Amino acid sequence: MREDEKGYLKEWSNIHSDVEIDYTDQIFNDETVELAKGYNGVVLLQTQPYSRTSLQKLQDFGITKISVRNVGLDGFDFKDLRDLGFSLTNVPVYSPNAIAEHTTSLMLRLLRRVPEFDKKFDNADFRWFPTIGEEINGKTVGIIGTGHIGSVVARIMMAMGAKVVAYDIKPNPFLENLGIYVNSVDEVLKQADILTLHTPLAKKDVHMIDTAAIAKMKDGVIFINAARGGLVDTDALIAGLDSGKIGGAGLDVLESENDVFQKKFTSIDDVKDPQFKALINRDNVIITPHTAFYTTTAVHNMIFDSLTDNLNMLEGKTPKYPVDITVD
Amino acid sequence: MREDEKGYLKEWSNIHSDVEIDYTDQIFNDETVELAKGYNGVVLLQTQPYSRTSLQKLQDFGITKISVRNVGLDGFDFKDLRDLGFSLTNVPVYSPNAIAEHTTSLMLRLLRRVPEFDKKFDNADFRWFPTIGEEINGKTVGIIGTGHIGSVVARIMMAMGAKVVAYDIKPNPFLENLGIYVNSVDEVLKQADILTLHTPLAKKDVHMIDTAAIAKMKDGVIFINAARGGLVDTDALIAGLDSGKIGGAGLDVLESENDVFQKKFTSIDDVKDPQFKALINRDNVIITPHTAFYTTTAVHNMIFDSLTDNLNMLEGKTPKYPVDITVD
Repeated sequence: MREDEKGYLKEWSNIHSDVEIDYTDQIFNDETVELAKGYNGVVLLQTQPYSRTSLQKLQDFGITKISVRNVGLDGFDFKDLRDLGFSLTNVPVYSPNAIAEHTTSLMLRLLRRVPEFDKKFDNADFRWFPTIGEEINGKTVGIIGTGHIGSVVARIMMAMGAKVVAYDIKPNPFLENLGIYVNSVDEVLKQADILTLHTPLAKKDVHMIDTAAIAKMKDGVIFINAARGGLVDTDALIAGLDSGKIGGAGLDVLESENDVFQKKFTSIDDVKDPQFKALINRDNVIITPHTAFYTTTAVHNMIFDSLTDNLNMLEGKTPKYPVDITVD
Repeated sequence: MREDEKGYLKEWSNIHSDVEIDYTDQIFNDETVELAKGYNGVVLLQTQPYSRTSLQKLQDFGITKISVRNVGLDGFDFKDLRDLGFSLTNVPVYSPNAIAEHTTSLMLRLLRRVPEFDKKFDNADFRWFPTIGEEINGKTVGIIGTGHIGSVVARIMMAMGAKVVAYDIKPNPFLENLGIYVNSVDEVLKQADILTLHTPLAKKDVHMIDTAAIAKMKDGVIFINAARGGLVDTDALIAGLDSGKIGGAGLDVLESENDVFQKKFTSIDDVKDPQFKALINRDNVIITPHTAFYTTTAVHNMIFDSLTDNLNMLEGKTPKYPVDITVD
């Protein structure tokens, strides 16, 4: 459990004073699983895999209800869960606005050339010229994926005066009535002055944005990815920035982010990842270390929804966010 | 004329090929007025005053139509214009969205603690904790002034999921139907988690935000001023930041901005303005050098509307933006 989660844990605990609750700052593994002994359920969050051995031990302690505080379930082998008789919940939506607002902020920072103005400020240069900006108003914003997050982005962009063109395999009926959908990803790529991704990382969508996709985009397109790093062929993106085809990029996720994000290096020179090095130090690229989701609202919801769902399962109630572990 | 204006001048000139047009990079004064000789009208933009001598010379050349490319008319003595038989136009609205989008960007940068994340990034620290952000969604946003700009801010804030509370002496009927108005500035100050000003600088509104006004605000309020520096008692603002009463400030304008903005210093240490020095180097203050308006759309409109209005007057047509010079 991270420091910033503890306040919300206490808040939840005060409301549920009949529930005995404890936490650890350690990750869940074959040894630390012992800490769960004596409890009825566990609430977990980590990027490391959940081993069969550790799950077997949980079952030995009589625990079969697991709730994770995040979306991703990559760390589980569902067969293990089925074999051992586990039930699982996650938190598939904790704050669409957190990510939609961050996406908007990245667009505005790129369009208004904030990295250049920041440098000028540090150099005591308070002149406008030649650092003129662009507006979202009047631009065509392409949105790929209009689920919980993409639909909030669409609403904000329309309020700012943008024309929205979107694609989703399952169109949102409300947005459909506003006439924003086009028939293909390619059509979004073709029309967008600003392009933003809001899809999960399905296997078929790995490197959705590759050299061929970039070639279909408008010259000077502003590209935002606050979804998943794997959606983008980063080398193709770098080539697009080098050629000027891509006018700017706001990246909250990177294919190789696990080598960089959530770490502290002595200096930027110690970061060895070649893609990361090729992206930083460009005035038209803003990288944020997977912080789009990171708001008090989101963390509150991750804690509250996971704990409540674990309790729901223990009390035999239907959880809000059950995970179907019958399909791998 | 600034460099960034010249492209739009050329564009306007191509459309009006029958109009002979020339420009100078010099400011308008008793000597440079000679450059206008032989022309029928002048289009001007400067912060320096327009002297009676220079206006008299314009009249001697047979020129009585002046169009300024900006809003402000402080540089004119209307009595001079009346005595000499001048007609005047300005550009009172060039892009409400430019300022509304910049306002939104300042809010998001403060709420998501971008200055702190920027420092961490420069120090090769890519960890989230403890730099957790806040969302606009769910917050109460107070808007003082709902004219061209404030009403766009209201629309964007509502799309982001904020509750908007607003005050204006002349409520906008569309927004009134949405129930956003309260009965006084004080009520806005009392309710707002985020407060933004979008009023002109009427004499009665000088230092509208003073020590007494700040005392009425919520603890930790985020304060944005992309309107006019004189609306704020800057010393009171600094005291509010020092005490923690004000949680963050985004300032595109400052009372003493003419001593700093639009200038280049050798280093920040050479800036002598004490208020400016007291505001910079705070993680919860973002200063932008009066750039909220500075977009290609805005500059396009400043050029096109001023030139077209000057031509309108010369052709005996009603200009789009006539200035009433009968009242001082």
